[in-house]
Amino acid sequence: MQLEKQSIQNINQDALAAHQRKFTYIAGEVANAEHIVKKLEAFNIAIPSWALGTGGTRFGRFSGGGEPRSLEEKIEDVGLIHALNRSSNSISLHIPWDIPDNASSIKTLASQLGLHFDAVNSNTFQDQQKQELSYKFGSLHHVDKAVRKQAVEHNIEVIKYGVELGSNALSVWLSDGSNFPGQLNFRNAFKNTSESLQEIYDALPDDWKIWIEYKPYEPNFYSTTIGDWGQSYLLASKLGSKASTLVDLGHHLPNTNIEQIVSLLLMEGKLAGFHFNDSKYGDDDLTVGSINPYQLFLIFNELVEGMDARGLDHATGIGWMIDASHNVKDPVEDLLQSVEAIKIAYAQALLIDQQELKSAQQNNDVAKGQEILQNAYRTDVRPLLAEARLRADGALDPIGAFRKLKVRDQLIGARGSKSVATGL
Amino acid sequence: MQLEKQSIQNINQDALAAHQRKFTYIAGEVANAEHIVKKLEAFNIAIPSWALGTGGTRFGRFSGGGEPRSLEEKIEDVGLIHALNRSSNSISLHIPWDIPDNASSIKTLASQLGLHFDAVNSNTFQDQQKQELSYKFGSLHHVDKAVRKQAVEHNIEVIKYGVELGSNALSVWLSDGSNFPGQLNFRNAFKNTSESLQEIYDALPDDWKIWIEYKPYEPNFYSTTIGDWGQSYLLASKLGSKASTLVDLGHHLPNTNIEQIVSLLLMEGKLAGFHFNDSKYGDDDLTVGSINPYQLFLIFNELVEGMDARGLDHATGIGWMIDASHNVKDPVEDLLQSVEAIKIAYAQALLIDQQELKSAQQNNDVAKGQEILQNAYRTDVRPLLAEARLRADGALDPIGAFRKLKVRDQLIGARGSKSVATGL
Amino acid sequence: MQLEKQSIQNINQDALAAHQRKFTYIAGEVANAEHIVKKLEAFNIAIPSWALGTGGTRFGRFSGGGEPRSLEEKIEDVGLIHALNRSSNSISLHIPWDIPDNASSIKTLASQLGLHFDAVNSNTFQDQQKQELSYKFGSLHHVDKAVRKQAVEHNIEVIKYGVELGSNALSVWLSDGSNFPGQLNFRNAFKNTSESLQEIYDALPDDWKIWIEYKPYEPNFYSTTIGDWGQSYLLASKLGSKASTLVDLGHHLPNTNIEQIVSLLLMEGKLAGFHFNDSKYGDDDLTVGSINPYQLFLIFNELVEGMDARGLDHATGIGWMIDASHNVKDPVEDLLQSVEAIKIAYAQALLIDQQELKSAQQNNDVAKGQEILQNAYRTDVRPLLAEARLRADGALDPIGAFRKLKVRDQLIGARGSKSVATGL
Amino acid sequence: MQLEKQSIQNINQDALAAHQRKFTYIAGEVANAEHIVKKLEAFNIAIPSWALGTGGTRFGRFSGGGEPRSLEEKIEDVGLIHALNRSSNSISLHIPWDIPDNASSIKTLASQLGLHFDAVNSNTFQDQQKQELSYKFGSLHHVDKAVRKQAVEHNIEVIKYGVELGSNALSVWLSDGSNFPGQLNFRNAFKNTSESLQEIYDALPDDWKIWIEYKPYEPNFYSTTIGDWGQSYLLASKLGSKASTLVDLGHHLPNTNIEQIVSLLLMEGKLAGFHFNDSKYGDDDLTVGSINPYQLFLIFNELVEGMDARGLDHATGIGWMIDASHNVKDPVEDLLQSVEAIKIAYAQALLIDQQELKSAQQNNDVAKGQEILQNAYRTDVRPLLAEARLRADGALDPIGAFRKLKVRDQLIGARGSKSVATGL
Repeated sequence: MQLEKQSIQNINQDALAAHQRKFTYIAGEVANAEHIVKKLEAFNIAIPSWALGTGGTRFGRFSGGGEPRSLEEKIEDVGLIHALNRSSNSISLHIPWDIPDNASSIKTLASQLGLHFDAVNSNTFQDQQKQELSYKFGSLHHVDKAVRKQAVEHNIEVIKYGVELGSNALSVWLSDGSNFPGQLNFRNAFKNTSESLQEIYDALPDDWKIWIEYKPYEPNFYSTTIGDWGQSYLLASKLGSKASTLVDLGHHLPNTNIEQIVSLLLMEGKLAGFHFNDSKYGDDDLTVGSINPYQLFLIFNELVEGMDARGLDHATGIGWMIDASHNVKDPVEDLLQSVEAIKIAYAQALLIDQQELKSAQQNNDVAKGQEILQNAYRTDVRPLLAEARLRADGALDPIGAFRKLKVRDQLIGARGSKSVATGL
Repeated sequence: MQLEKQSIQNINQDALAAHQRKFTYIAGEVANAEHIVKKLEAFNIAIPSWALGTGGTRFGRFSGGGEPRSLEEKIEDVGLIHALNRSSNSISLHIPWDIPDNASSIKTLASQLGLHFDAVNSNTFQDQQKQELSYKFGSLHHVDKAVRKQAVEHNIEVIKYGVELGSNALSVWLSDGSNFPGQLNFRNAFKNTSESLQEIYDALPDDWKIWIEYKPYEPNFYSTTIGDWGQSYLLASKLGSKASTLVDLGHHLPNTNIEQIVSLLLMEGKLAGFHFNDSKYGDDDLTVGSINPYQLFLIFNELVEGMDARGLDHATGIGWMIDASHNVKDPVEDLLQSVEAIKIAYAQALLIDQQELKSAQQNNDVAKGQEILQNAYRTDVRPLLAEARLRADGALDPIGAFRKLKVRDQLIGARGSKSVATGL
Repeated sequence: MQLEKQSIQNINQDALAAHQRKFTYIAGEVANAEHIVKKLEAFNIAIPSWALGTGGTRFGRFSGGGEPRSLEEKIEDVGLIHALNRSSNSISLHIPWDIPDNASSIKTLASQLGLHFDAVNSNTFQDQQKQELSYKFGSLHHVDKAVRKQAVEHNIEVIKYGVELGSNALSVWLSDGSNFPGQLNFRNAFKNTSESLQEIYDALPDDWKIWIEYKPYEPNFYSTTIGDWGQSYLLASKLGSKASTLVDLGHHLPNTNIEQIVSLLLMEGKLAGFHFNDSKYGDDDLTVGSINPYQLFLIFNELVEGMDARGLDHATGIGWMIDASHNVKDPVEDLLQSVEAIKIAYAQALLIDQQELKSAQQNNDVAKGQEILQNAYRTDVRPLLAEARLRADGALDPIGAFRKLKVRDQLIGARGSKSVATGL
Repeated sequence: MQLEKQSIQNINQDALAAHQRKFTYIAGEVANAEHIVKKLEAFNIAIPSWALGTGGTRFGRFSGGGEPRSLEEKIEDVGLIHALNRSSNSISLHIPWDIPDNASSIKTLASQLGLHFDAVNSNTFQDQQKQELSYKFGSLHHVDKAVRKQAVEHNIEVIKYGVELGSNALSVWLSDGSNFPGQLNFRNAFKNTSESLQEIYDALPDDWKIWIEYKPYEPNFYSTTIGDWGQSYLLASKLGSKASTLVDLGHHLPNTNIEQIVSLLLMEGKLAGFHFNDSKYGDDDLTVGSINPYQLFLIFNELVEGMDARGLDHATGIGWMIDASHNVKDPVEDLLQSVEAIKIAYAQALLIDQQELKSAQQNNDVAKGQEILQNAYRTDVRPLLAEARLRADGALDPIGAFRKLKVRDQLIGARGSKSVATGL
């Protein structure tokens, strides 16, 4: 299914007066409202194909209904999201879950919905049915060269699919690690990983990037071979300028100062982009901004300041993507909430008077520095987001419109109440 | 020094028009603005006497200037804070740091500034100069009955000072614990603590309460004898109805769900109140709301809902106090920021439509439940706080007024740039 | 398959001389070697039926071969373990994974292998195929009374199966919780849980116990309705003397002092027993003693001292069970390693001179207290374990024997290389 | 005071028979006992001058008696430790706490006791009395170039003192960081630090090294400018081959896999050495091996394997030092316990058959890999340590000898019961 512009506008109509009252107010209160609205219009966050169905844990999965049964239906769902929020104009695929049978028709479908293809993701953390060698003990770090070779070739195949679809980045997350002391030799594992990545790197087209994710634990629970930003950075440095570090917000030890890592990676020219989500304990893959929205804001403060310092375009300078698991909410609603939270943080960060902040920092006026950030954060920027959506023919209230238009009911009608999407 | 009402009003004058514009707007947008303003007017948070000077760590202390040199000057500082924010009408003393030489004149001074005395705090985590027995190995849990007796008597003496000043609660934080496995017998330590507390409990005046704080570590680094809410609750249950559990936000292991603990203690009638602060790592004693303001809001959501369910008055039903350490900011500014953050969280919690929330919960509409909380949290309630202050003759912008009136300079002029207050 | 006593003895023969040399040495060095050997002979740890197959994570599962395909084959595997280590004389079942079609023949089979049935476990964290109502939003804490009723009845049914098999305890672990702030009302969830447990409690046979497990997170990632020992203790206290708290070593926040919790629960008569495993990050379910064996020893120190103080028999006073997931090792080998680690910790704890320790504690001789524990811990007690096994007709080296006898090959031969056991 | 070799030998006499029995046994059981004893004889761990007095926390300090009042007395204490354990042949000084008035006489004193001078430590985390500019807001990262210059010059002065004493490494730990979001610009702070370090680096004598420590928090509680190994590594890489990363075991976030970091730093040629201690929560600075001795062993496993792979001499290839705080134990006894724990871990690591381990790893025989490590770890190597000490004229039981010789009483007699050493 596809959402008609008109049906969204009809729903907007009822809320228009209230919106205009709110927008007029905030536009009068903040100095750069128009600037922020324009930035928000240009800003998009990619949707992962594997997050359009209900997620699960090792203890079970409780599916919802109307989940996409094919790559086409996944693209259709991203189209729905984008029609509502006008900020999700791309999809990130996971191979082999999303192998396109016919790349050209898939591209056409996406294009009709205003979508393109973000980074493609390889998968060497599961064994596929006809796979020759097992990844039980890892992939790119494996002690057996044949397994490493198989994993390298899989990554090169993923690039090939990406090229067909017009993607230009390969995102690599490895689950390689160990569960017990003594299981592996850290040094050899790291060197094997480095060599394997080099082979993949050498196969990258000229205009492609490789993004190297890190994660401290899960599904391995003693060590992970690319466990922290330093290890990812080290690998990316050895590889060269096309390689950089991908930050998944949930992939950190308790209490990590993620915004500082972001700042330093930007400084070193090695920040690939983000997998956004939120968490209270570990890689909980919760809705972005649902647990600690101030941290998200602090990250965007670093991003705005740091990207401006390097002259990077906010919308395209790095990769923006959600990576969450929707275990108890409608996946589409959950993704709409995540995009909203990201854009709120971004808008608030754009409110910060960077000159004033620098001046407070230069004077060690700590209370003032805190006030500047808090003033931006405490501002209600939601009317700015709504205005940006309105101008782009999106919904003033995306989740509200999703519900009023009974989209999920229609999807269940079309796909059945027992459909289960591939993914985590 | 004392702040004249007139001088604050003069400063308010310049910001009045802007304030009225903002307040009018928000009052038009939210359903219960007037109700919230009234609640805010009635709401006060006690100031700890030991937080009026610059704090330190084991690595050092970098004093500011104009710190209070006596109990009188500490009360004077709280008077300044209260004159600005009209929400800090009491002070919490720490004995023996704050022994009043003349209780009656101290009470008169406080009364003139609109202040009264909150819970009194005992100190058995340090040795005092003329103290007979050492607390090196603990106090109420000590293996030696004589040490326990000395500590019990100190607590009873603290109650006596509190009675003289019109306080009606004893706040007990013990550093008792161990640094190494084998150092103590957990069971005996717990039983000794229970017996010692019983002796103190028996000495409480009829209208007094005893508040039992818990903390998982520091200054002991292997075990703490009252280490978590469960241990505090167990002790408070054994003692009786005058005993309850005090929650210091910084006294939890990483990732603890504090709001759930608050909810359950309220349910069981055992929530004494709070020591507010914020932290990223441990008991960092940072400004309230400076690290994770959403958590603070979630705690206030539980408080508002839970206190209403028990028919408790928000302002007086439990104890509200700040317990922070101001290592790099002016202590008065820092405390003003903390009070502001607490009241913002409280106002946002008052915005929540509890009926609507209950309905979403009853329907397992998780996305809706989240939206309800986030809608309240994302609302800019600062004009409501400013209005409450304005009506109470406080400053629209407390820190701004503090700076414009050059209060710190005057304090330095009066007390010198090398004064160092007692405290942590 | 079943291991013949003779085949184990044949293998022991080769190592007998070395064993006797080692045992003679240690028996001469420590004061109470014979006492420890006897205690070890009497000590058994239950094997969970769900840990006999390869475990997995949400990212995948890499099965081994020869996994048990039925309850009978699970019992057979425990029989193999017990034949080798003579310390695993019971099995803990999980309903509905392990519903016995014919209880009497199952009991006979177990009995032939020297086994009996430990606590039975209910499962309300997954939906079963023909189940009427879903546990997606919880079971005993559910907002809908009908769901709670279904979950209560399931538990009562589990008791019924347990009675048939001669078990006498129900172990309840709930995954009930929430993923997002606003999803549930903590107080109502707790009260619902309490009422549901009361109904189950009322259905317990006279000689039965109910063990209430706690866990801070996973599979819910914002709150868990029985999240810590304090919450479990509170529920168990309300229920009565048949209810107590079950400690799973992996169910704690980072840095929790578990041994102190154990000590206090024992003191209050509310320690049900253990689910043993080890972890570095969260509920990693790794082999017992593989990550932090000293912590395991410290727990056993509290157990030995605390059980002796209450006059509890070490072997039967509380429940002993493994709860681990074997993702990269042969499950049987992994379980053998776990049992070995538990018994080493127990033997080391039995080495502690409790009188000497008490004396050091009474004198605050911290260095001495540490030395006493470390002296016990640093002693190589493996010959004591081997001797206990030898006397009970077990293997001197259980894993060595398992490999030499090619047990896994035989199991694969009988069950196939693609069999997958039910479980996590 | 100084311990006579004869008095130690007299005490050894009583325990000699038992020692020889134990040593003979273990020498017969393990393949490379003689090799390990020789390695242990060659192995020394430096003692920090600031750990010879009782430590404290921000909540207080409970001094013991007989603490060293001068640099001479600190050296004297290290002499006592070395006489007992024969493994502490150097001292690490902290400037300005330990400025030598007369370097030549200090060197002579040390030399008489068999000691030399390990790395010198600068201190820019505290303000000294006559210091012109304050380090309240940092030192090498400071926004003010004048403060940075002062801190650089202090470090260069420390090198000068070190040169006089024969030291050849500068150890730099910075407390630079921030307490609040907004306080500083991470990028500028990092760049300033890098530039300041470059100036110090340029002043290093040819044969000197600079060791850069990292720490995630404390005394700053929001960010630390050199917060993790990655940041330290990045700085050391920019500086050059004389710069490397110093690992303090307590300076990590919860659950960090430290041994993996050690392995990678060794691989990259950037491991400077260690500050040994142990901890349960944060930088608790507890006795080495008192909380998690298996982790210490795993670190030594990486060290032995990794140093051998690089052809580094175990004794001198990297820097070995204790950095602990002794709050409740006699500092000398505490240090003796720490050295013992380190050497036990080292001896156990030397027991590992690296060929066998590599083979298990190559075959993904995870259970076997774990067994190999555990077999080494479970071996009682204490007789090997005692033998190494005996051969070097040290005490069989250092703490026992310290107590029997009533060393602390003599120190109190000489220095008084109220002496307080400089340090943390």
